[in-house]
Amino acid sequence: MENEMKIIAEKGKQELFIIREFNAPRERVFNAFTNKDMLSRFFAPFGNTMHFNHFDYRTNGNYSWYNKDPKGKVVCTFAGTVHEVHAPERIIQTSEFMELPERGHVVMERMNFEELPGNRTKLVIHDVCMSVADRDAMIDSGMDRGLIDIFNQLDSILAKEKHQMA
Amino acid sequence: MENEMKIIAEKGKQELFIIREFNAPRERVFNAFTNKDMLSRFFAPFGNTMHFNHFDYRTNGNYSWYNKDPKGKVVCTFAGTVHEVHAPERIIQTSEFMELPERGHVVMERMNFEELPGNRTKLVIHDVCMSVADRDAMIDSGMDRGLIDIFNQLDSILAKEKHQMA
Repeated sequence: MENEMKIIAEKGKQELFIIREFNAPRERVFNAFTNKDMLSRFFAPFGNTMHFNHFDYRTNGNYSWYNKDPKGKVVCTFAGTVHEVHAPERIIQTSEFMELPERGHVVMERMNFEELPGNRTKLVIHDVCMSVADRDAMIDSGMDRGLIDIFNQLDSILAKEKHQMA
Repeated sequence: MENEMKIIAEKGKQELFIIREFNAPRERVFNAFTNKDMLSRFFAPFGNTMHFNHFDYRTNGNYSWYNKDPKGKVVCTFAGTVHEVHAPERIIQTSEFMELPERGHVVMERMNFEELPGNRTKLVIHDVCMSVADRDAMIDSGMDRGLIDIFNQLDSILAKEKHQMA
């Protein structure tokens, strides 16, 4: 049974919600999204690779990461500050897509990790944009395809770890 | 002629705009909002005083400040990360009112400093909240009275400096 990703984006709002469940306990899912080595293993879709300019992932920290395609070309760079890391349940950060032609279109992102029965976890990502136009542009960029691939890759890693631990 | 503060808060939106003009050049107004000593002089209303837990005000930095009333009681604490300081035109930061009973109600704030004719400056503060309810609670807290007092205090400082420079 595959875990499906849902995006809730009400028309005319400047926010969206991305919801995805994982077949692993909350601590392990939370760790996957805050650990540099784990992120390197799954946070790039379509055969791309994940890299960091810097990674200081804690309350009051900051980060900058990018994806490279198989030819070595940088396809996207995201950077921001980390307002709060509250393990294992909450992350609040800013995020800016650095390839945009204009600076300042920042997203505030809240990630909630909820415990589900059966050692499963529900991740809810709440993105709040500067405007409805920014929100709509983000959706139109095709972010959903990338995220589906990224989350499926994380599924494989979590399943492999579970197998190794069993 | 007094500079009036305007708040634009469209019903049902999770954002608001605070607009205020100053009779001083942009560099000086920008400096007032990013310099610890300047902030200490004006950023507390009603005879309260301004204090800092920490102040690292630069791109990827962070801050925590509080106001004390004349009896020495802490009346409010705000903390957050600084996504971008782009002198003298733009600041983007997160801000959390730490006295709220629940953590996580963070505001993303963009401050734009625009040059006006006659060596004057227009400040536009754009606050984006996690929800419409958060935005409405912020307005209902009476923040407008505090801001009016704070901005009037800055007017006095800027006028005094202008007089000293003449």
